[in-house]
Amino acid sequence: MQIATPYLMFLGDVPDRLAAKTAYGINDWRHEWCVGQFRMEGCAADLDIPDLTLEQAVAQGCKTMVVGVVNAGGVLPEHWVEKIVAALDAGLDVASGLHVRLGSVPAIAEAAQRNGRALHDVRHTTETFPTGKGTKRPGRRLLTVGTDCSVGKKYTALALERGMRERGFDADFRATGQTGVFISGRGVAIDAVVADFISGAVEWVSPANEPNHWDLIEGQGSLFHPSFAGVSLGLLHGAQADAFVVCHEPTRTRMRGVEASLPTIQEVIDLTIRCGSLTNPGIRPVGIAINTQALAEPQARVLLAETEAAHRLPATDPVRFGVEGLVDRIAAEFPA
Amino acid sequence: MQIATPYLMFLGDVPDRLAAKTAYGINDWRHEWCVGQFRMEGCAADLDIPDLTLEQAVAQGCKTMVVGVVNAGGVLPEHWVEKIVAALDAGLDVASGLHVRLGSVPAIAEAAQRNGRALHDVRHTTETFPTGKGTKRPGRRLLTVGTDCSVGKKYTALALERGMRERGFDADFRATGQTGVFISGRGVAIDAVVADFISGAVEWVSPANEPNHWDLIEGQGSLFHPSFAGVSLGLLHGAQADAFVVCHEPTRTRMRGVEASLPTIQEVIDLTIRCGSLTNPGIRPVGIAINTQALAEPQARVLLAETEAAHRLPATDPVRFGVEGLVDRIAAEFPA
Repeated sequence: MQIATPYLMFLGDVPDRLAAKTAYGINDWRHEWCVGQFRMEGCAADLDIPDLTLEQAVAQGCKTMVVGVVNAGGVLPEHWVEKIVAALDAGLDVASGLHVRLGSVPAIAEAAQRNGRALHDVRHTTETFPTGKGTKRPGRRLLTVGTDCSVGKKYTALALERGMRERGFDADFRATGQTGVFISGRGVAIDAVVADFISGAVEWVSPANEPNHWDLIEGQGSLFHPSFAGVSLGLLHGAQADAFVVCHEPTRTRMRGVEASLPTIQEVIDLTIRCGSLTNPGIRPVGIAINTQALAEPQARVLLAETEAAHRLPATDPVRFGVEGLVDRIAAEFPA
Repeated sequence: MQIATPYLMFLGDVPDRLAAKTAYGINDWRHEWCVGQFRMEGCAADLDIPDLTLEQAVAQGCKTMVVGVVNAGGVLPEHWVEKIVAALDAGLDVASGLHVRLGSVPAIAEAAQRNGRALHDVRHTTETFPTGKGTKRPGRRLLTVGTDCSVGKKYTALALERGMRERGFDADFRATGQTGVFISGRGVAIDAVVADFISGAVEWVSPANEPNHWDLIEGQGSLFHPSFAGVSLGLLHGAQADAFVVCHEPTRTRMRGVEASLPTIQEVIDLTIRCGSLTNPGIRPVGIAINTQALAEPQARVLLAETEAAHRLPATDPVRFGVEGLVDRIAAEFPA
């Protein structure tokens, strides 16, 4: 899936910020692609970017209207459908993170065809991937892995992209989840791929590249999560990661959505090396990213210092304290 | 997917035995369900069971016509379509292992609806599974795992079902691939499930059961196969296996379809225990199944004896030498 940029951000008439979480994430990380927002009467979300009509958006170069919002019932309300049709008629592609497929709404399917515009359903994939080959491809790759789901794997990869580019690295974030796909304009929601093609889809997401180029691949789930470990393993094998960062949330008492207890950071390091060496025998950890949001700053600093000492790896909260230490380690371990 | 039995086996007019491989597999393992065969002029396959008309099949109690054949082009030829429609009109369900979905052929879809009959596409699944929970459920489970794809995991599970039932065990084969689904009349082709639901689908395939009941779960792929390890791991976690048998093909020099070399049997044992203990800390190996087809009998016996000694586990070729030793070990390790 390759989504044309820049974007007009459709916010509909959502009742709160949370319903526009994806749109906020895109604007946080790709502000330069968010030319304007399109809001309807009663909309309680605001990205603090210009409100544009469809015609203004087209005139300012927008290529795609992004529906980065959800509504309570999970359905596509009728009064949103007419705006999406109008966007297609105005010459924009439309990309959506909704569960419902845009093309399943007859009026939208007809308008896309009539105008020769593309519809992207980021939660789904129509792409047919080959199965993974496991053959080492050129370029360097870092994967963010986790002790659990929702521990900061996407944010860590994005923060590394920003931090590494600032330090002169040639580095690209590679998306494997829906918000990530909007942020990179390309990628695939890996958990929606048919099981046989997980590693093949990752090989497609992160293709061969220049020897010193870094792909920063967004991880999913955890090798220790009883629901999703298969996705995590296929992702690890397809990524052929040279390096990985372990992401962790220190206040969690059990794994998200199930009764299983959390693995230790060391267990994640060990099993990631054990399994990852199948497609890249040189795989090694380069740091630990801890989401310290729930801790006061002194406590957070103590925890990070203890973690560094215990694992002899740089540990940071990428959002709170930056990724300097991680980039130092990458530079030292992988000289150009 | 639950397919009503017994079956009328549709062989069409396939030009050779190989094109009817699935039908032969079903008849090998579920001869009692194969009431008769329905062949068209020029058919070169023969299951050596009675040739029946559709009316005779219905009169003899058949519930489902099984299209256990493939044709060269991968499409459904027009002269098969009319026979499938006739079967639906005669009151049979139809189940197919073809890539093309039965319901995508308008004449077949209409006939199914008109007659209120079910269509089963065993290569696909329309079932929506919950994500895996990882919570231990009652009953005992054995999973066949492999050093590679296509090393005898299905045959080993089926041979164990037969051998354990003969010894008085309450045991059921559980299918995770298309031929297996026809053989058990239930199950799901696990590699066709969306990635997020692999372990959840396996929890569905092998539900809670009596404490002494054994599910013999058909494995898929290998934890060491760079294309399919994600499927294998989700399957292992969903199976919550108490016991596993490692399946191996000794003449293979690299993994099927890729450049990777084969793991050793010991590596498979170690990683299966390491990963499987997430959802069942008691997981242990109970034997090794080696496909010795390419070896003369004395060589095969030497290899099996050496393998037994090296791993202190019973080793056999289930097809050639039976599963007695494996069942002995299961009985000893898991007393009722």
